[in-house]
Amino acid sequence: MEEQLLPPNVLKWRSVFVDYLTVQVSNDSAHDIYHHHRVWQHCLTIAQTLAESNAKIDPLILVAAAYLHDLVNVPKNSPNRSIASRLSAEKARDVLLVQGFPKQKIGAIEHAIESHSFSANIPPITIEAKIIQDADRLDALGAIGLARVLCISGQLNRQMFHPGDPLARNRALDESTYAVDHILRKIIRLPGEMNTECGRTLADEHTKIIHDFLSELELEVGIRNGQVE
Amino acid sequence: MEEQLLPPNVLKWRSVFVDYLTVQVSNDSAHDIYHHHRVWQHCLTIAQTLAESNAKIDPLILVAAAYLHDLVNVPKNSPNRSIASRLSAEKARDVLLVQGFPKQKIGAIEHAIESHSFSANIPPITIEAKIIQDADRLDALGAIGLARVLCISGQLNRQMFHPGDPLARNRALDESTYAVDHILRKIIRLPGEMNTECGRTLADEHTKIIHDFLSELELEVGIRNGQVE
Repeated sequence: MEEQLLPPNVLKWRSVFVDYLTVQVSNDSAHDIYHHHRVWQHCLTIAQTLAESNAKIDPLILVAAAYLHDLVNVPKNSPNRSIASRLSAEKARDVLLVQGFPKQKIGAIEHAIESHSFSANIPPITIEAKIIQDADRLDALGAIGLARVLCISGQLNRQMFHPGDPLARNRALDESTYAVDHILRKIIRLPGEMNTECGRTLADEHTKIIHDFLSELELEVGIRNGQVE
Repeated sequence: MEEQLLPPNVLKWRSVFVDYLTVQVSNDSAHDIYHHHRVWQHCLTIAQTLAESNAKIDPLILVAAAYLHDLVNVPKNSPNRSIASRLSAEKARDVLLVQGFPKQKIGAIEHAIESHSFSANIPPITIEAKIIQDADRLDALGAIGLARVLCISGQLNRQMFHPGDPLARNRALDESTYAVDHILRKIIRLPGEMNTECGRTLADEHTKIIHDFLSELELEVGIRNGQVE
């Protein structure tokens, strides 16, 4: 979808959400306002492709879910991680009601927010929920996604990689210990888990830099750890 | 240098240092025992090339400096950062004296350790000091170097990148705020600052993945931030 061609109320609501987030949102790089802008841009790209096949997509649901999908952040190592998207959906509903958003759309927004998260394990049913999940996953890929997972690992004091077998050729994955194990377990599998064809194509493109990083890492560790005991 | 062909006392001392570090060394991924192993491997590679041109290199000085160069860690954002390598050199001297290391070589080891660090701004004079500095810098490059700088940024709560102009095309670098600015300011300049030809060749090879990461990052931010205000 071309943003300039969207109905004016979509852009009006987008401004409302940006204003809200500018005050509310945490400053951590992984979920700053730019993450939300990028997710919205991905939504528009995917929606544009789907609209060309005559899919009916409600941009108002999309813009609300894109900007309000991460209102409640639970650290990745918390036992409550799996309910973060449920809590975000509830908080989004409250925000939307207070702001006077059209009530009949709020349920669909809640569903899109609740189902977007990996940890929640709730299948997205609606086209908007499928787009939001794909768009959010795209931001976990690419150079940005790689930087995010490594930064977050530093914050969590997780080690970078298993020093003898970084790509887990001969051991079980342990993503609570190693950042690279999280990449192997979740990030590089994302292209195969996209809902839309367009999302999958973009995901493949954005996974290339991560595969390059992993190959290079293994090479370096292999060369350099010749003397590791 | 082929490690197997080194005099037995070099390998004996290497074991002593590894044992010492296994007890002493911090668990942070950037300076774990594997960092020291990799630096030692880089030293051997560079020394081998130099030895082919008949350079006289003392492997005993090299092995001590490779394994004892980071004994005192000062956080990257501390005002005492610039004296960390001086403190490490002093601590290395104490360790070597206690362990009965040949006294006449300790001064050269201190010099190699003191001058290895970027922040100390002490030119390496001896061939061993030049090799140590190159070897340590090589470990700041490649996939490992990229992972290290991003992890450390997470630990320091530094942001990943300037969201509107990640490669600082139209702004001053601010490496205390952005991890990518540190990459631009220090890491990608390392190949031009190597002391040895072999170090420079290896550094160029290991910088490719970092340049790929930066290009991809700029592309993603450009595409995705179409709506950033």
